[in-house]
Amino acid sequence: MDSYIEIIGFVAAFLTTAAFLPQVYKTWKTKDVTGLSLPMLAMFFVGILAWLVYGLLKDSPSLIFANSITLVSSFILVYFKIKYHNK
Amino acid sequence: MDSYIEIIGFVAAFLTTAAFLPQVYKTWKTKDVTGLSLPMLAMFFVGILAWLVYGLLKDSPSLIFANSITLVSSFILVYFKIKYHNK
Repeated sequence: MDSYIEIIGFVAAFLTTAAFLPQVYKTWKTKDVTGLSLPMLAMFFVGILAWLVYGLLKDSPSLIFANSITLVSSFILVYFKIKYHNK
Repeated sequence: MDSYIEIIGFVAAFLTTAAFLPQVYKTWKTKDVTGLSLPMLAMFFVGILAWLVYGLLKDSPSLIFANSITLVSSFILVYFKIKYHNK
């Protein structure tokens, strides 16, 4: 039963993470961060960190997996936003 | 202990949902969907649906709350993408 639940979780994790990665890749390539706001990115980053902690406490492999990847991705976006701020 | 875990979950839910809403609002206002790809949006929508099912099976109020709101928001984005496709 539990592994069946985790399969759904991993499908969810794969789909939402994969949908987010093109945004990161596009920003990486274009260095265009004008469409992204720093407060929004920072909020998202802290939110993902909280989901990761929640996943650890809730013992959810899917949440831990998805939010570890998204934490790194969103950190890259925050970094780009600060680095190319004046562009 | 459980309610303490859910507080972290709701902080996560609030932050990531709130970070996503300006995107939906901006699209609503501008009707500009050129930056959004339909396969990516569809993937995201199905992913959020899977997170919602996972949250229900895992008995997680935070996941159910966050993904219900995001499901509606991402549905709006899919709808706009299809409606203003030729713009």
